[in-house]
Amino acid sequence: MKYLAVDVGGTSTRAVVVEDDGTCVGYGTAGGGNPTSSAVTAALSSILTAARAATDQSGLAAADLAAATVGIAGAGGATGPRVHTELVGAGLSDNLTLEPDLLVAFHSGSIAGEGYALVAGTGSAAVRVRDSRIDATCDGLGWLLGDGGSGFWIGHRAILAASSALDHRGPPTALVGLVLAKLGIEETGARDPSKRPSALQHLVDAIYQLRPIELAHFAPLVFEAEAAGDATARGIVDAAADALAATLAAVVVPDVSGPLVLSGSVLAKQPSVARRIVESAPVSGPDPTVITVNDGLVGAVVLALRRAGVTVDDPVFARIKTSLATLR
Amino acid sequence: MKYLAVDVGGTSTRAVVVEDDGTCVGYGTAGGGNPTSSAVTAALSSILTAARAATDQSGLAAADLAAATVGIAGAGGATGPRVHTELVGAGLSDNLTLEPDLLVAFHSGSIAGEGYALVAGTGSAAVRVRDSRIDATCDGLGWLLGDGGSGFWIGHRAILAASSALDHRGPPTALVGLVLAKLGIEETGARDPSKRPSALQHLVDAIYQLRPIELAHFAPLVFEAEAAGDATARGIVDAAADALAATLAAVVVPDVSGPLVLSGSVLAKQPSVARRIVESAPVSGPDPTVITVNDGLVGAVVLALRRAGVTVDDPVFARIKTSLATLR
Repeated sequence: MKYLAVDVGGTSTRAVVVEDDGTCVGYGTAGGGNPTSSAVTAALSSILTAARAATDQSGLAAADLAAATVGIAGAGGATGPRVHTELVGAGLSDNLTLEPDLLVAFHSGSIAGEGYALVAGTGSAAVRVRDSRIDATCDGLGWLLGDGGSGFWIGHRAILAASSALDHRGPPTALVGLVLAKLGIEETGARDPSKRPSALQHLVDAIYQLRPIELAHFAPLVFEAEAAGDATARGIVDAAADALAATLAAVVVPDVSGPLVLSGSVLAKQPSVARRIVESAPVSGPDPTVITVNDGLVGAVVLALRRAGVTVDDPVFARIKTSLATLR
Repeated sequence: MKYLAVDVGGTSTRAVVVEDDGTCVGYGTAGGGNPTSSAVTAALSSILTAARAATDQSGLAAADLAAATVGIAGAGGATGPRVHTELVGAGLSDNLTLEPDLLVAFHSGSIAGEGYALVAGTGSAAVRVRDSRIDATCDGLGWLLGDGGSGFWIGHRAILAASSALDHRGPPTALVGLVLAKLGIEETGARDPSKRPSALQHLVDAIYQLRPIELAHFAPLVFEAEAAGDATARGIVDAAADALAATLAAVVVPDVSGPLVLSGSVLAKQPSVARRIVESAPVSGPDPTVITVNDGLVGAVVLALRRAGVTVDDPVFARIKTSLATLR
């Protein structure tokens, strides 16, 4: 039997076809698909595109798959039933299960039944897992209401810092040059009809052309400026670590000791952020295991196999990771 | 001769028909029209609706008007030419002038050639005026990039405070009850599938149904909670006053002494905010005049008459204000 597992993120979506023993035989990707931050239609399209690429690579058709498991934000919320109905209708699989994106993130790092996951990619959230189910969630409220310390949150602050500096309300920062260069805007010194720097007006015009969530693309500039010693960028990174630590702290309880799985580009690519979080919001226990993963795809595979009745033990878990690594 | 003057705000649009001597003879309103924060199409529709109501009340047709002056955000920016072309095409007036919203705000309070205006309605910005033209602008960058201390800014923080408290990341605040009541959400204590308070998930679902700029509607709840002694609300109001003071301070120079015109709902309806701003960012001069106005409509009339060659002196200015007051 073969199964489809999909991990839907705010910026990208990944799908894999897996066999009973944990061997991954097809892999595909597509664009972002978080149904909270972009339209549900875009999420559905991303899932189907990634799934088709994965089944194509495996040499199978959708009809050959015994079941499909999709890890997605809001699986248990208002959009869940609609996503489920439309994916089945589009022929993904009649035997479709939606799982919370944070549970697949946790199981990407661990097959344990309890512990914590903290995710900071485009968005951010923390969960406590108990009996292989989500026992508590903090944040994950989307770009307008939360996602503290996420890629969006950091990128938004990069743009705010650059625009405030150009507007003479904020201190000078290397982010001005980095942000303008990324957008292809020249700093000419010219002023627009309202006597503002022309570069500021061009920045404003460019940013409002984007979907807000796309501000996450500016997050890497903050880490670049921080590495070069920019004080404003350092302040943003520190505040992001504080926000993520607070999100994790809100779900930590004494009787669940870990492991702690860290996922998402901000935590996977910025070890200094991860270290500060672990130090400031310690999970209980003398030395809790901290595992960093890139995304939730391995966990989606774990849950797909478990749902099919496969016992996912250490050898199967290792086979998933090894075979998937050769496909990516 | 009769002229049309329009003042376009983020939440509402006002139009008036005025005679040569400053007597206002027709008044109309419509919805919000800020072309930065909502679609340009909505702005055009609001302007035409308000204009039609004003001309109808005056007993005139659009063809009877010698000229039209529209005070609008971004008059000199990228959307200005499009707004101008479409309004002329829609028959508003062949003789149409767009003026910056901040210049009409200033002239709503003063016919002086120099001074300052600080506006905090749905959005926020400050200008320095010299020779009856804008000499410098700060902020006014819209909800995603600035508008510090504006109605949106305050309302957004009300929602963030309520959602953080429900999410156990932030301190308890009276804003939780006020925000949920305004949205018709019950605090039941029930938890959703991700083990979050159901009220939080309902709040998130409700907020993402709104256009972001509509969060300005929650700003009054902050003033209500502050008046009742809520510490979180007090912190938001203090931060709003600080942000607005910084915006004003960025345009103040020693050789322009005032007057200072304060406009927009946040400043017109919250005298404590206005007082804190005036104290912390003093305009130069021993006792600069501070004038508070509700909106920019009087200033749009002033500029409409000046453009028609009418000298707007104190008697004409007084006649504009008196006759307009009887129409509103």
